[in-house]
Amino acid sequence: MQSTFSGGFSISLLCRTLFVGSDSRSIRGHNNTFDILSRICIQKHTPINKRRYKSMASHEKMEYTILSKSSWRQRSNGCCNTEWMTMSQFLDHLENPQAGSVFYIQRQNSNFTEDFPELISDVPPDIPWATESFGKLPDAVNIWMGDERAVTSMHKDPYENIYCVISGEKDFLLHPPTDRPYIPYGKYPAAVYKESSPGQWKINPMNIDTPKVLQESESDNEESNLVPWIRVDPLHPDNTRYPKYKNTRTLRVKVQEGDMLYLPSLWFHHVRQSQACLALNYWYDMEYDIKYAYFKALETLCE
Amino acid sequence: MQSTFSGGFSISLLCRTLFVGSDSRSIRGHNNTFDILSRICIQKHTPINKRRYKSMASHEKMEYTILSKSSWRQRSNGCCNTEWMTMSQFLDHLENPQAGSVFYIQRQNSNFTEDFPELISDVPPDIPWATESFGKLPDAVNIWMGDERAVTSMHKDPYENIYCVISGEKDFLLHPPTDRPYIPYGKYPAAVYKESSPGQWKINPMNIDTPKVLQESESDNEESNLVPWIRVDPLHPDNTRYPKYKNTRTLRVKVQEGDMLYLPSLWFHHVRQSQACLALNYWYDMEYDIKYAYFKALETLCE
Repeated sequence: MQSTFSGGFSISLLCRTLFVGSDSRSIRGHNNTFDILSRICIQKHTPINKRRYKSMASHEKMEYTILSKSSWRQRSNGCCNTEWMTMSQFLDHLENPQAGSVFYIQRQNSNFTEDFPELISDVPPDIPWATESFGKLPDAVNIWMGDERAVTSMHKDPYENIYCVISGEKDFLLHPPTDRPYIPYGKYPAAVYKESSPGQWKINPMNIDTPKVLQESESDNEESNLVPWIRVDPLHPDNTRYPKYKNTRTLRVKVQEGDMLYLPSLWFHHVRQSQACLALNYWYDMEYDIKYAYFKALETLCE
Repeated sequence: MQSTFSGGFSISLLCRTLFVGSDSRSIRGHNNTFDILSRICIQKHTPINKRRYKSMASHEKMEYTILSKSSWRQRSNGCCNTEWMTMSQFLDHLENPQAGSVFYIQRQNSNFTEDFPELISDVPPDIPWATESFGKLPDAVNIWMGDERAVTSMHKDPYENIYCVISGEKDFLLHPPTDRPYIPYGKYPAAVYKESSPGQWKINPMNIDTPKVLQESESDNEESNLVPWIRVDPLHPDNTRYPKYKNTRTLRVKVQEGDMLYLPSLWFHHVRQSQACLALNYWYDMEYDIKYAYFKALETLCE
């Protein structure tokens, strides 16, 4: 593996520099990410999501919500295997992108602490001001690294999110949760991409004979083979199909190396990144308080 | 004036007993309110709201929202005078209620500190735990005393409300602000009661030639001679006219002597009281934060 990025700092120093100090926005990381990861983890086999660009795709004239392999595994109680590759292979793919195949470390569920135990001591276990503010420790620390074509479609999370970019940059497009009435949701059958041959992907609809598993999913959906998904592409909104969407209020935030973004729970977000951007985020469980009750009341009115 | 209530404690001791201690609910006041008020304030001329029972009334086949004299004065920039009587007269009325006339000290706008300066030193200027929690001092300290027939119709306030009953009891009927979609609002022309002869009241529609003043009112109403009012009587709801109201979730709270109720901002409340109940409340300005944004989003969907 050849790296176009090099530098004299360890990831430990990067993270400590990133997180210590009253104004993390004024502190930048350094572009030695590839070097460090390849040195520490090059022979490590790492779970990777392979997927195509869009999280929504058509197949035989039908639209599907495309789940990642990891969420498919969660939903289907282990019937599918996550794909693995070495960090060396992964970094090679990032340096030499191939048409059609998009790789992204984004397994969530605290994949930083679960999948990269070698790096745990380099990173603080929590963000002290956030832990004090939220009155709890984070539920998860996630690591994100991948292809610039890996765009995360608009969604919301039930977590207070402290998002830290270590190298590269991320572009967040945000709507407040009070814009829920203007966000067009649809319910679609779920599918996963399957690599039929190297670089060739086909839609693989989920087996609708597994309703029990789906009923336990986050969709809270009685029609359990359907998954809610936000239809609109905020970068190219279809104002004819989704006329209310233009009522949303939009914030655009570029999070650069050394920046830390507090993304409050239930805010809608769409995320892009620079090629091989490396980021960590801390998920603090949200409070199911009057704010959540308000959100559910809004949601009920929208349904 | 004759008083059926007597006791050995001053209002000062009552209030200090009420407010000091970790569990104010376990501490009761004493029934010497009449005695104390008559001793301190008997010759004092005090602004009193005279009004009839209902805050909604019909006149010539039209329904009106009945404003109190004080709010009418606020809205009309001083064109009407508040009525005054001595505390002695007021207490006599409470002891000998007359059909048709209902008297209530409820001017708000910090009427405790404005109208009863003699008693200020008897009462703490704020509630320390609330001041710490809300990060500010109260905007107003109000005193409430009156006829058991003076029922306050369902409404909400933009204040965090710490409600302290000194003697007697109050019955609160509460709905959370997330029930806004089920609360039937109407918009009605405003009126005040006018005492045409002692004990005889007539509806006096407000002059609709004063739109400027009304445009500045809290109604935020472009059709500025109309005032929003919650139509339903929660004690006898008309399920045929307001079928959604049955979806509300109701809390009933009896606040007794020595009890302190925290009534959060924007909660809907309907209030009854025992005859000659005496209460103080502290209004802390609400935060216009995400909760307020949620409420306004709900309200927008309901309009």
